Amino acid sequence: MKEVKVIEIKKSVFEANEKDAEDLRRGLKGRGVYLLNLMSSPGSGKTTTLIKTINLLKDKLRIAVMEADIDSDVDAVRIKEETGVGSIQLHTGGMCHLDAEMTRQGLDNVALDGLDLVILENVGNLVCPAEFDTGAVRNAMILSVPEGDDKPLKYPLMFSVCDLVLVNKMDALPLFDFDLERCRANVAMRNPSARVIPVSAKTGEGIDAFAEWLLEEVNNWKSK
Amino acid sequence: MKEVKVIEIKKSVFEANEKDAEDLRRGLKGRGVYLLNLMSSPGSGKTTTLIKTINLLKDKLRIAVMEADIDSDVDAVRIKEETGVGSIQLHTGGMCHLDAEMTRQGLDNVALDGLDLVILENVGNLVCPAEFDTGAVRNAMILSVPEGDDKPLKYPLMFSVCDLVLVNKMDALPLFDFDLERCRANVAMRNPSARVIPVSAKTGEGIDAFAEWLLEEVNNWKSK
Repeated sequence: MKEVKVIEIKKSVFEANEKDAEDLRRGLKGRGVYLLNLMSSPGSGKTTTLIKTINLLKDKLRIAVMEADIDSDVDAVRIKEETGVGSIQLHTGGMCHLDAEMTRQGLDNVALDGLDLVILENVGNLVCPAEFDTGAVRNAMILSVPEGDDKPLKYPLMFSVCDLVLVNKMDALPLFDFDLERCRANVAMRNPSARVIPVSAKTGEGIDAFAEWLLEEVNNWKSK
Repeated sequence: MKEVKVIEIKKSVFEANEKDAEDLRRGLKGRGVYLLNLMSSPGSGKTTTLIKTINLLKDKLRIAVMEADIDSDVDAVRIKEETGVGSIQLHTGGMCHLDAEMTRQGLDNVALDGLDLVILENVGNLVCPAEFDTGAVRNAMILSVPEGDDKPLKYPLMFSVCDLVLVNKMDALPLFDFDLERCRANVAMRNPSARVIPVSAKTGEGIDAFAEWLLEEVNNWKSK
């Protein structure tokens, strides 16, 4: 009895989330706003990568950022200070991920009119965020060199739901046993159509390629 | 490549995790076995740290390792190959953490008689594993230098439940904006009594201090 009940609850929650996510995506499409869900492990460099990317794009796109964290607001403050774009902090109250309803609550606090792009920096976690459609148009993730090229073997779902994998901290490559080709092969095993872009948020290497991808994505979405 | 035992564990449907954890701890005490729960982000160096530590301790303690991952058995194979101690892989079936019942299922596949120490390498995740008492005597975690010294601000529960924080990849310090004193202060804010040991699993720096801590822990537990 308990087993059946638990499964039903879980299923209904997931089903509701899928519908919520579709509704959110449709609503954003109607307003011409592209939502990117950016995921990664803790400390992979999401915020620094975003700052560099936004500074390349902010004259071409009107951008806002939602920073999700269990606690602290250091990331949202950094985004605002170092890019000048609007930024809000979402506290998840201990939750390990965002679902579509939580994302919608965040978006309710963003002035969407006139925006082209909202970037959601999800909670640092390679497991749970991959299980919930946030309503974003695309999922992207950052894998950093010090984490190792074997992560797609250990966290399969995260890599299979992402259309783009940024390999960050490429400047640290000499110090770590990380093989970019092995990483590409491991990513391809989980998602053959995922694009892999090596970057260094520190030196700026590769950030232009990510910015170009994002610009094209947003323009395609708005013109579809 | 050596074959390792892979256990597919199921999530506990009963919500009595605290009781399960206490029962498990009591049972282990009765058999003279110390269980350490080691947590961290993905790619912080848990397995490499364990290999170096076990090689320092294996003549003094009889040790086994349980490696939890969502998928793959690369870690259990490495432990077996590089230390010679018994090692099994726990597959969590997508679950982001282990609870006491899942840990018990793992321990049922370990020959406990004659063992002093079982080390559980939890799923790489700074959020969910902190919420579940596994039945271990102590929780320890690894924070690696590339992740940043601000992690205790963002993942408060993980740092508050750990008695020991190993700061790994100290050899990479020159490449990253990581301040060990700031890190100590951030850890102390979450848990004033937590011990912080800087290590480098790559160079071996500090591993002796971790091994000493663990040896003393096990001996105290057995003689209590």
